[in-house]
Amino acid sequence: MRTIKVNLDARSYPIHMGEGLLGQTGELMHRAGCTGKVGIVTNPVVGKLYLKTVEESLSRSGFGVSSILIRDGEEHKNMTSLASIYDHLVRERFERCSSLVALGGGVVGDLTGFAAATFLRGIAYVQIPTTLLAQVDSSVGGKTGVNHPEGKNLIGAFYQPKVVVIDLAVLRSLPRRELAAGLAEVIKYGIIQDADLFAYLEKNLSNLWEFDRTSLERIVADSCRIKAAVVEKDEREEDYRAILNFGHTLGHALESEMHYEDLLHGEAVAIGMAKAAKISFGEGLCNRESLERIVRLIQQAGLPTDLPRHIKLEQLIKTMELDKKSSGGKIKFVICKGIGAVQFQRLSAEEVIARLAD
Amino acid sequence: MRTIKVNLDARSYPIHMGEGLLGQTGELMHRAGCTGKVGIVTNPVVGKLYLKTVEESLSRSGFGVSSILIRDGEEHKNMTSLASIYDHLVRERFERCSSLVALGGGVVGDLTGFAAATFLRGIAYVQIPTTLLAQVDSSVGGKTGVNHPEGKNLIGAFYQPKVVVIDLAVLRSLPRRELAAGLAEVIKYGIIQDADLFAYLEKNLSNLWEFDRTSLERIVADSCRIKAAVVEKDEREEDYRAILNFGHTLGHALESEMHYEDLLHGEAVAIGMAKAAKISFGEGLCNRESLERIVRLIQQAGLPTDLPRHIKLEQLIKTMELDKKSSGGKIKFVICKGIGAVQFQRLSAEEVIARLAD
Repeated sequence: MRTIKVNLDARSYPIHMGEGLLGQTGELMHRAGCTGKVGIVTNPVVGKLYLKTVEESLSRSGFGVSSILIRDGEEHKNMTSLASIYDHLVRERFERCSSLVALGGGVVGDLTGFAAATFLRGIAYVQIPTTLLAQVDSSVGGKTGVNHPEGKNLIGAFYQPKVVVIDLAVLRSLPRRELAAGLAEVIKYGIIQDADLFAYLEKNLSNLWEFDRTSLERIVADSCRIKAAVVEKDEREEDYRAILNFGHTLGHALESEMHYEDLLHGEAVAIGMAKAAKISFGEGLCNRESLERIVRLIQQAGLPTDLPRHIKLEQLIKTMELDKKSSGGKIKFVICKGIGAVQFQRLSAEEVIARLAD
Repeated sequence: MRTIKVNLDARSYPIHMGEGLLGQTGELMHRAGCTGKVGIVTNPVVGKLYLKTVEESLSRSGFGVSSILIRDGEEHKNMTSLASIYDHLVRERFERCSSLVALGGGVVGDLTGFAAATFLRGIAYVQIPTTLLAQVDSSVGGKTGVNHPEGKNLIGAFYQPKVVVIDLAVLRSLPRRELAAGLAEVIKYGIIQDADLFAYLEKNLSNLWEFDRTSLERIVADSCRIKAAVVEKDEREEDYRAILNFGHTLGHALESEMHYEDLLHGEAVAIGMAKAAKISFGEGLCNRESLERIVRLIQQAGLPTDLPRHIKLEQLIKTMELDKKSSGGKIKFVICKGIGAVQFQRLSAEEVIARLAD
C-alpha cells in the first residue's frame, strides 16, 4: 500500500492506494479516526460488484453499517437524490460522529461529499473511487456538490474527506472507454506539471490497457500527488487551482452544448486539451513538437481530438463567454508552455477563432 | 456606530451596531470587500418595512440589486425555500464574487447563510438581523441551515458572514412578545458568562421596554461580544461552544414536543433555563439566591418559567434522550455555577426527575 498525504492543516487526510484495499476499508477508517455508524452510498452497478466486500470489512471493524442506493448517472446528481440520502440519515438516526462512504465514480463521490458537508453541519466521509477518473481527479480535493437543472455543480461546498481509499484492482472491471476517459485527466496532469509523467504515458500506454499493476499505480500515484499539491496551495480555487481546468474551459462548454449526452467528461476534456494546445501554439507559447506530442498521445489513448461535426466553434465560444469564469468579454484559458507548465491567458472570441483556424 | 470583531483567521468579520445602519448597508458592504451583484433575501413582513432602505443604500454604492422574497415562518425554513433562492441566483447569473444579504430574523438568516454556503461552493453573505433574538444570537457565529421534516436544523453548514449590520432602530417595530423572546438569550449570556450583564438586566428592564437607546446598545453589544468570544474558541462546536445551549436542551425538546406551535423559541428557552437552574441547584452547584434571581428575572422579562400543563416532564426527557447530544443513556446538560459560569454535566433521566421534583 502506498500513501500520499494531502496537507490542509486540520483538514489534512491520507490517500491510500494499492490492490485489494476495499477489504481493508474498516481498518483504514478506524485509523482515520472514524467511529460509530457508517452509511455506504453507491449505485446498483457498483454496489453489485463491491458493496458486500466493503460492508463486511466495516462490520468486521465494528462499525454499524447501512447502505444507500442512488440511481446511476449524472442526471441523478441532483437535489432529489440528496434528499433521499438525508432521509436515510435521519431515519437511521445518524449523529455528528457518524460517517458516510462514497463507493463509486464522480457522481456518487460528489453527492455523498455534499450530503456529508451539510448533514448536521458536517459529518465525516470517505471516498472509495471506483473509476479511473474518480481515482485520479474527483475523489481528491474536496469539491462536492449537485447539479442545478440549469447547470452542473452550481450547488456545492468545498469539504474534504477523512481518507481516500483507492483500490487499483477495481479498475479491471472498467470498460475500455471509461479507462480512456480517466486517462484524459492523467494526460492533463502531465501537460500542466509533469513532463516525466507525460513521457511515461507515451511509453506505457499498452501496459495500461493490460491493467499492468506497476503502470497503473505509477500514474494514479503521480496524478494524486500533483492534484494534492495544487489543492494544498489553493484549496478553495481562489486562483491557482484553476490550472486544473486545462482543457476544461472548452470541454465544459462542449458537454453543455451536447446536453451531457454522447460524450463522456474525459472525452470532452480530451477535445478541449487538443484545442487548448492548439491555442497555446498559436499564442507562441507551445512549440510544434509539443503540440504534436499532445495530440498524438490523446489519440493513442483512444480519445477524440476534434469537435463533433454538428458542433460549431462559434456556439461553444458563446457558451464559454457566459461561463462564470469569463469576465469583461474575455475568456480565461489555461494554456500550456510546451509540456509540463501552464499559465492563464484571457482571450477574446476573435482571438480564440483565429488561433484555432487551420 | 460600535464595532465588535469576530476573530476567525481568514473568516474574521466585524459586527457593526448603531441607530440607522440600514441606510449604510452599501457602504459597510463595500468596506467588507463585497462587490458586484447583491441579492437581498427577506420576507413580506420585514420587506415592507425595510427593503427599500437597504435597496437604495446598495444601489447608491453601485451594487446591482435584486430581491428574493421567501414566506414568513419557521415552517418555510426548508429545502423548498432554499431551491427558490438557488433558482433566483441561477436566473440572475450570480457569480462567485456576488453576495447575498439576509434581511430578517433567524429563519431568513439561517436560510440565506446556507444558500450562500452552497451556491457555487460558497459566495459572500451579510447578516442584517431585524429581531432582538437574531441580533444577539442567530446572526453571529455562522450556524446556517434548513429544517428536515423530521427535525430542526438537521441540514446546514458552519459558514461565517462577511459582516453583520445591526440597526438598533428596527427593534422599535418589534411586538413586545418578540422583544421578550430575544431577552431570553440575553439573560442566558448573563448566566453563562457575565454576572454584570445579569445585574444590569435586573436594573434596566423598564428602560428596555421603552426602547432606551443606551440600554439596548449595551445588552446587544455585550451579547455579541460574549457570543463572538465563545465562537472564536470553538467555531464548529466540537465541545466548548455548547455552553451556549444553556436552557436549550430542555427548550428544544419542549419546542419539538409542542410541534413548534404556541411557544416562541425564546419562551421555550426561558422555561429551559428556569429548569436548568433548578437542576443546578439540586446538584449543589447553584445556591438558592442565584436560583431565585434567575427565575425572577425571567419572569420580570415577561417570559414563562413553567412547563405548559399538558406537557409531561417524562415525555420531554424521552425526547432529550433521543437528541443527538445525548449518549450512553445520559443527557448532556449545561448547568450553572451560580450566575456567570457554567459547566457540562451528564445526567440520567432519574437524576433529572429527582432534581426537578419540588
